[in-house]
Amino acid sequence: MSRLTSLADRLRAGETLLSAWSSIPDPVTMEAVAATAFDTVVLDMQHGGHDDGSILRCLPAVISAGKPAIVRVPVGRFDMASRALDFGADAVIAPMINTIEDARTFAAAMKYPPVGGRSWGPTIGLARRGVTGGQSYLECANAQTLAFAMIETREAYAIADDILDVDGIDGVFVGPSDFSIAWSGGHRIDPLMDDMMEAIGDIAAKATARGKLSAIYAINPAICAKYEAMGYRLMAVATEGLYMAAGAAAMVGEARAAMKKG
Amino acid sequence: MSRLTSLADRLRAGETLLSAWSSIPDPVTMEAVAATAFDTVVLDMQHGGHDDGSILRCLPAVISAGKPAIVRVPVGRFDMASRALDFGADAVIAPMINTIEDARTFAAAMKYPPVGGRSWGPTIGLARRGVTGGQSYLECANAQTLAFAMIETREAYAIADDILDVDGIDGVFVGPSDFSIAWSGGHRIDPLMDDMMEAIGDIAAKATARGKLSAIYAINPAICAKYEAMGYRLMAVATEGLYMAAGAAAMVGEARAAMKKG
Amino acid sequence: MSRLTSLADRLRAGETLLSAWSSIPDPVTMEAVAATAFDTVVLDMQHGGHDDGSILRCLPAVISAGKPAIVRVPVGRFDMASRALDFGADAVIAPMINTIEDARTFAAAMKYPPVGGRSWGPTIGLARRGVTGGQSYLECANAQTLAFAMIETREAYAIADDILDVDGIDGVFVGPSDFSIAWSGGHRIDPLMDDMMEAIGDIAAKATARGKLSAIYAINPAICAKYEAMGYRLMAVATEGLYMAAGAAAMVGEARAAMKKG
Amino acid sequence: MSRLTSLADRLRAGETLLSAWSSIPDPVTMEAVAATAFDTVVLDMQHGGHDDGSILRCLPAVISAGKPAIVRVPVGRFDMASRALDFGADAVIAPMINTIEDARTFAAAMKYPPVGGRSWGPTIGLARRGVTGGQSYLECANAQTLAFAMIETREAYAIADDILDVDGIDGVFVGPSDFSIAWSGGHRIDPLMDDMMEAIGDIAAKATARGKLSAIYAINPAICAKYEAMGYRLMAVATEGLYMAAGAAAMVGEARAAMKKG
Amino acid sequence: MSRLTSLADRLRAGETLLSAWSSIPDPVTMEAVAATAFDTVVLDMQHGGHDDGSILRCLPAVISAGKPAIVRVPVGRFDMASRALDFGADAVIAPMINTIEDARTFAAAMKYPPVGGRSWGPTIGLARRGVTGGQSYLECANAQTLAFAMIETREAYAIADDILDVDGIDGVFVGPSDFSIAWSGGHRIDPLMDDMMEAIGDIAAKATARGKLSAIYAINPAICAKYEAMGYRLMAVATEGLYMAAGAAAMVGEARAAMKKG
Amino acid sequence: MSRLTSLADRLRAGETLLSAWSSIPDPVTMEAVAATAFDTVVLDMQHGGHDDGSILRCLPAVISAGKPAIVRVPVGRFDMASRALDFGADAVIAPMINTIEDARTFAAAMKYPPVGGRSWGPTIGLARRGVTGGQSYLECANAQTLAFAMIETREAYAIADDILDVDGIDGVFVGPSDFSIAWSGGHRIDPLMDDMMEAIGDIAAKATARGKLSAIYAINPAICAKYEAMGYRLMAVATEGLYMAAGAAAMVGEARAAMKKG
Ligand SMILES: [Mg+2]
Ligand SMILES: [Mg+2]
Ligand SMILES: [Mg+2]
Ligand SMILES: [Mg+2]
Ligand SMILES: [Mg+2]
Ligand SMILES: [Mg+2]
Repeated sequence: MSRLTSLADRLRAGETLLSAWSSIPDPVTMEAVAATAFDTVVLDMQHGGHDDGSILRCLPAVISAGKPAIVRVPVGRFDMASRALDFGADAVIAPMINTIEDARTFAAAMKYPPVGGRSWGPTIGLARRGVTGGQSYLECANAQTLAFAMIETREAYAIADDILDVDGIDGVFVGPSDFSIAWSGGHRIDPLMDDMMEAIGDIAAKATARGKLSAIYAINPAICAKYEAMGYRLMAVATEGLYMAAGAAAMVGEARAAMKKG
Repeated sequence: MSRLTSLADRLRAGETLLSAWSSIPDPVTMEAVAATAFDTVVLDMQHGGHDDGSILRCLPAVISAGKPAIVRVPVGRFDMASRALDFGADAVIAPMINTIEDARTFAAAMKYPPVGGRSWGPTIGLARRGVTGGQSYLECANAQTLAFAMIETREAYAIADDILDVDGIDGVFVGPSDFSIAWSGGHRIDPLMDDMMEAIGDIAAKATARGKLSAIYAINPAICAKYEAMGYRLMAVATEGLYMAAGAAAMVGEARAAMKKG
Repeated sequence: MSRLTSLADRLRAGETLLSAWSSIPDPVTMEAVAATAFDTVVLDMQHGGHDDGSILRCLPAVISAGKPAIVRVPVGRFDMASRALDFGADAVIAPMINTIEDARTFAAAMKYPPVGGRSWGPTIGLARRGVTGGQSYLECANAQTLAFAMIETREAYAIADDILDVDGIDGVFVGPSDFSIAWSGGHRIDPLMDDMMEAIGDIAAKATARGKLSAIYAINPAICAKYEAMGYRLMAVATEGLYMAAGAAAMVGEARAAMKKG
Repeated sequence: MSRLTSLADRLRAGETLLSAWSSIPDPVTMEAVAATAFDTVVLDMQHGGHDDGSILRCLPAVISAGKPAIVRVPVGRFDMASRALDFGADAVIAPMINTIEDARTFAAAMKYPPVGGRSWGPTIGLARRGVTGGQSYLECANAQTLAFAMIETREAYAIADDILDVDGIDGVFVGPSDFSIAWSGGHRIDPLMDDMMEAIGDIAAKATARGKLSAIYAINPAICAKYEAMGYRLMAVATEGLYMAAGAAAMVGEARAAMKKG
Repeated sequence: MSRLTSLADRLRAGETLLSAWSSIPDPVTMEAVAATAFDTVVLDMQHGGHDDGSILRCLPAVISAGKPAIVRVPVGRFDMASRALDFGADAVIAPMINTIEDARTFAAAMKYPPVGGRSWGPTIGLARRGVTGGQSYLECANAQTLAFAMIETREAYAIADDILDVDGIDGVFVGPSDFSIAWSGGHRIDPLMDDMMEAIGDIAAKATARGKLSAIYAINPAICAKYEAMGYRLMAVATEGLYMAAGAAAMVGEARAAMKKG
Repeated sequence: MSRLTSLADRLRAGETLLSAWSSIPDPVTMEAVAATAFDTVVLDMQHGGHDDGSILRCLPAVISAGKPAIVRVPVGRFDMASRALDFGADAVIAPMINTIEDARTFAAAMKYPPVGGRSWGPTIGLARRGVTGGQSYLECANAQTLAFAMIETREAYAIADDILDVDGIDGVFVGPSDFSIAWSGGHRIDPLMDDMMEAIGDIAAKATARGKLSAIYAINPAICAKYEAMGYRLMAVATEGLYMAAGAAAMVGEARAAMKKG
């Protein structure tokens, strides 16, 4: 099960991974996203355009590229957390895990008994990874597929310890945009807001202390070094629309500049 | 018909336009492509992944962005040249126009009688542009939608004058990759090949001499200045996969560099 | 943010709007629906065929037509209420809001803190409306996007006052078909049932009394005047299959009649 | 093969049929179109949005509705004429049949040897119609599936007799819009143009004289009686966007009028 | 309403039905699945690739084939249980019904008042079945569409009696794979596990004792006889990927064997 | 370029390959087809449901499975022959190659200069195969991608020698169904027709004599041994609908038989 094991193993070994962020629910586009310089891809179903069908149809492009695939489900769509794994995802991010109950329900959808109550049926994903033999998958799946709980409100931060202690939660994924709205009482949207940085660092510290994983969304590449210093080891950067905009702007700029010079 | 008239008017007025190049047949992706810094978009059905259905479904995103939309049809798919216009395209590029017959057949598909034999039925495109009244469209369509004949072989170059003289052909679009294969007798693929540059410049000169338009594919932004100096006024640069790759590489590079420094 | 503000502003200013009702999850069809004489479009995910993907892909056609777009989500799909706004919808209708808890959960998904807990990520929708600058959107979104709670059971009617008082609920949307089943104890389906009309009028009165909005589904155009007199200002009429059937029947009838006369 | 035989049999028996016209390439929409009061449906690939895939996916809705399905292919897409039959169409309309060569090529794609050169492979269509046994289909297909050649230019009109005499051409389909452009030398688009009406009547007369079928596009229902009097027995009216627009306008008008009265 | 009534009537009359199992969310594929020798088709949204849109688009192929259509929804997607019926399904299977609350919520989504709270809006499905007149559908729908609760954990087995007694639950559907994981405390995946067979038989006995229906997933055809002897009357066998694999393997084997012999 | 070279190399080395035949234009279905016991897959655009878009979207599933992918284009769609290669196909089959002109036009679309006139643009396919460096692809593509001309009429058989001698035609693909119609003068469809078998053997002999490849469609696996003895080395068997039907029939039969025994 070599292709399946890598994301969990690499993160647990302390490797720092940079992830592309995909909002566009199209398999041909995903071929391009999976071919970029990023180490992994997050397929976003919460604010991005992905849906059940696009997860099914886009995962093969990421798997073919030899990269781990991570799915962020919409708020409360724990049915889809299981489905994402069934279709071949390596990890799932669940947004707005604000209560212990949320964390437990998420973990239950992600882990087979006795840890959770994930229902059996990984046929599609196993075929995509060339895995045969359900028994061996049953024995390794709970360890090899990752559940990331999003910490992005004051309530969640207040119980971050307890969320991290839930059996079946493998790590946290911090959402700095929502966190800034929460931190400012609804007044500001600023994922780089200074006065919440200490709390963000604290979340990584709590996770590390428990031997769990820390991940975060990075609004731009510049902030990654700071997050890494805090202990974050999986950082998802910007979004594929921004990669395209940046690349195009650079090319248009270069062409226009050269033409101006003549 | 303000939205319809701009590409033809701007090019005829001598403006230099840089075009994005789209290979991915998906409307949501097209929203991102249309939002980049490029002036226009080419939707490629020849080597790119676009097909009849994706042209229909992607054009609204370009039109909504207020940019001209250009469709390159596959070799000999003149039926689709008409359809692209019907769906709302501003211009069509036809590849491998190697004979006068090719040029005439292309022109016939692009222009209403008496210039050509384009069949009436622009309902979808007119609705998309808010145009009502077929009669006024009939009266301006031949002038306002553009037919670009690709010159990309030695045979085509040899009769470039005649192709340009065909009524209904509004300009040439040069394909430097195929031209390099042709120029080297099938031995080299190099769109920047030095010894064919004079011929490429000559094509623009011939077009300009006849009051027709010159366009070209630019493998990278650096070459655009040279093409512009030759007389090219519409340059399509790279492809959306390359914009994404470039933007992602820059971000990954920046993040990795910052993390290394610590 | 002119394109975003109109639905909320127009309804609050007392304008009466008639809405098309779309059940067909296809963007090209949506171009036709958005071009009809209706003022707005409801995209129905509950009983209609719309799904997450079709909302993403159909909203641009409504936005391009310059009309407000309203999404009805399936029962309990509050994750999709947020997503609909993220994709560019102006308003969301949630069916079967039968308890205060339902109303609060719906409001939480629709409104940013401190009113609710809507998660940040409107990138797709803002791009579609040409809005830049997240901060300004954060400041106006709660006021400019509308949450309509459906009142369509006896339980809901009994607590209509309380539902309307929930912070973040902008108005009610009455479902007369379900209401008639409820009113008749499961015995009759009749959206025009006489003996429930007083209650329907009462709901509008309660909303108006609180300065909130009243909307309703109208099974046919004839009933609209009655609803308007009750205070309803947004009426969604029939469905696009019925528009097509009616238009076709009229044309077939006219042709057959003329041919009979000969 | 009862479901297959009806269109050819009914038209040859002299029945007058009114056809819906579909431009929207979506199977769910097609369910609505097929359910209207029209007798048959034309799926338009020339100026409408249909493509190879939508023909494959939309035909079942028409077949399920118990109505004949007719496909108009793009100019020169004779490969698709065969494919439409393979997918289950009852008839194909080919536009711009301007030469005898065009007519022969079209017929060759439509009819099995020895009449033409249609290639064997109707598996998908036969399954859809519940037909088993290829041999019986081979024996009836040439008679039961119909090839309509479009007459819509002066050249075509000049040789209409010869086109009609081509073995394998079952009838003509007149395109009055293109015919008006042709008739006016490119100056006018008016499918109801008076001075071409005699020619249009003449085409029907020629077909009738040869025992072949006459069909025509009717821009509105009012003109159908005139066409029927000329001998036309299959008339395709307007388009599904117009049915929807008409039905919606009637409903909005009725609602607005009632509300005004109060 | 003949096409609608058959599954419920046949199962209640004691007929034993074998069902195909579909994981592939594509309407053209569904035509092939519906044409196989199976009596019915289950469209799986839990572990299979089906989603809201594919249920909408695939049901017509099953209905056209004259076979009952059954939809399995994802865990907790009771909104989709209603939608599946609205789109024309004959029955819905809900996985992981582990509490009485689960069973009641499922029943509420499946049955109109006063039994449950299913919301009115079956327009799409009625059109597909040629049913007109909502009132008659309201009167028969609760009896003619079936709700199957999945029993597949120890908790569910412990309260199987109570689940079966819930008004609106028409029968059980046993998931032997999950049941084996549950039975073995998470240690084994083996849908044919011997020591749980008695319990599986007991579930059917409980259902039969209450006059309710028993259904089960059969990992292979060989086990069906045992299940039937236990009282199961609806057995869903393998999956369409396995039918294809088996058929292809047989053909490749036959060809290779014949070639070896020479 | 290891993944690209195998089909040509294996066939030229004399290996006998059995190919699956795909008519269903869906990538998820293609994952199942590519996973069957067959050595390769033919994606059929002529009589099957594949189209430009499905070729683009389905090829990755075949490539991921490590199997060669072959595309049959519709009659005369030579533009698509080039496109299939651009998207990553290993070979193309062109139907109804009845004249030397047909063969030359097909070869021209398949081979780069100086052999043919294939236009440069294999970006999508090279990315899918992990090939970088256009120059090396240019140097091997003509040898490593295969052009199969279909011989399936008396005219084609009469000039089979000449067709095989066309530079750029790598082999023949025989269509026995059309050949039987041709052989019987349009009277019989029987791909196993005895009296044409000698001619079919003769075609393989002619190809072998010229060092070119022989391929054929096999209506069932039993006939493969005979074809192999004639010299055919690539045999495409039945279709994926038949694999599914056969596998399902076997399972239903087994279950029914076991239940009957009790
Ligand atoms: Mg967030
Ligand atoms: Mg080129
Ligand atoms: Mg309702
Ligand atoms: Mg015409
Ligand atoms: Mg289960
Ligand atoms: Mg053939």
